[in-house]
Amino acid sequence: MAPTPNSALLAAHLREDTADLLALLPAARRAAAGGPGGGEATLDGIARAAYRTLRTAENLAAHAALCTAPPHPQPVCVTALAAAYVSGAAGVCRSAVFVPEWPRAPLWAMGDARLLAAALGNLLANAVQYGGERPAISVRAARRGETLLLTVADNGPGCAPSAGDRGLGLGLEVARRYARAYGGRLLAGSAPERGACFSLCLPLCPPGAAPSVPDYMADRFSPLYVQLAPVCDLPL
Amino acid sequence: MAPTPNSALLAAHLREDTADLLALLPAARRAAAGGPGGGEATLDGIARAAYRTLRTAENLAAHAALCTAPPHPQPVCVTALAAAYVSGAAGVCRSAVFVPEWPRAPLWAMGDARLLAAALGNLLANAVQYGGERPAISVRAARRGETLLLTVADNGPGCAPSAGDRGLGLGLEVARRYARAYGGRLLAGSAPERGACFSLCLPLCPPGAAPSVPDYMADRFSPLYVQLAPVCDLPL
Repeated sequence: MAPTPNSALLAAHLREDTADLLALLPAARRAAAGGPGGGEATLDGIARAAYRTLRTAENLAAHAALCTAPPHPQPVCVTALAAAYVSGAAGVCRSAVFVPEWPRAPLWAMGDARLLAAALGNLLANAVQYGGERPAISVRAARRGETLLLTVADNGPGCAPSAGDRGLGLGLEVARRYARAYGGRLLAGSAPERGACFSLCLPLCPPGAAPSVPDYMADRFSPLYVQLAPVCDLPL
Repeated sequence: MAPTPNSALLAAHLREDTADLLALLPAARRAAAGGPGGGEATLDGIARAAYRTLRTAENLAAHAALCTAPPHPQPVCVTALAAAYVSGAAGVCRSAVFVPEWPRAPLWAMGDARLLAAALGNLLANAVQYGGERPAISVRAARRGETLLLTVADNGPGCAPSAGDRGLGLGLEVARRYARAYGGRLLAGSAPERGACFSLCLPLCPPGAAPSVPDYMADRFSPLYVQLAPVCDLPL
């Protein structure tokens, strides 16, 4: 029995995305019947709405895992994960610019690679979604004492520290719960004309025997693809 | 903060339905590009998968309402609601036969019309889904002392009393929670070769000033349509 942050809100999101999808079907049917074109763009819209639902499902699963399973901290190479994510995101979200910044020596934290990937994917997707017209997204990893700071900052209009007015829901909650579960925290901030900034503070650890970073863009149901697809600009 | 019965399971359902939908998109794209036919059938499959998600959202909202809002019992004309639902369902699920059975005089219970509609819609949809190849569904309303029994029985392979092995999830939970919240209970039973049988036991009340029964089939986002669409046999 895992709690859901707000199941009424979750239901409203699912309804909205599915209503968007169903609203596109008549145009797709007209195109399929040989009517005037636009079939491809309509099907892109259908795919985008479906991916919004898939992202909700991905976050719901991560949230359930964070609420029910006890944390099982393992060494995670955060810089390798960030590098894989930034490169994957740059391939899908071509109108966005990603600026990675971390030291040459790998940085490791205690955590869970799969769930940290979900948390980072949400921060990246939010930055793409709420960044400026041409999102410029900085991804930084740095050591601060015994803490690893993993920061995603964008060039959008920023947000209040609560981030509540920025439309962020389950995704940010996943990032927050991840940080708490693994002995860290999520910091949110923004400055006028400097966009929003979210930092995961994670407990540093010495290099460990982490599994190699999976190819997060290898298939269309991978966590990163699912999180970026609703906000990316490629045909899906 | 409404609890979700099982958010990991809910996430799995959402993923499965959306993956089904996305798997149909390449065929829809081929058809849209003037490839070999099948566009209509593909789009029917997409609509069906989308309606499965919409049904999940509908049940999630009803579940959240039942978990968070205190019950506010009002007189509900159960036979009028059942009549509207049976007639609506018969119009959509044409391969199923619905056999209504209730006394001529209307029967009223204390409850919430909107949420009782959600509970009944789930029982009907489950009967269509798990009934025999040509579902024969009996819908009965009868007085038993101070209780109103609203029973939906099908001609499927039946189920264990827990109904757990019949694939029923959130829908049955909505019916069960509705019954409990409004002073009744949900009984489940089955007999070999006689199919499954679910009875909502509701507190009878004298005729009241209930609002007229809405037209549950009037639009494609109405609760009954949403619940039946995933299991109905009409093009959507």
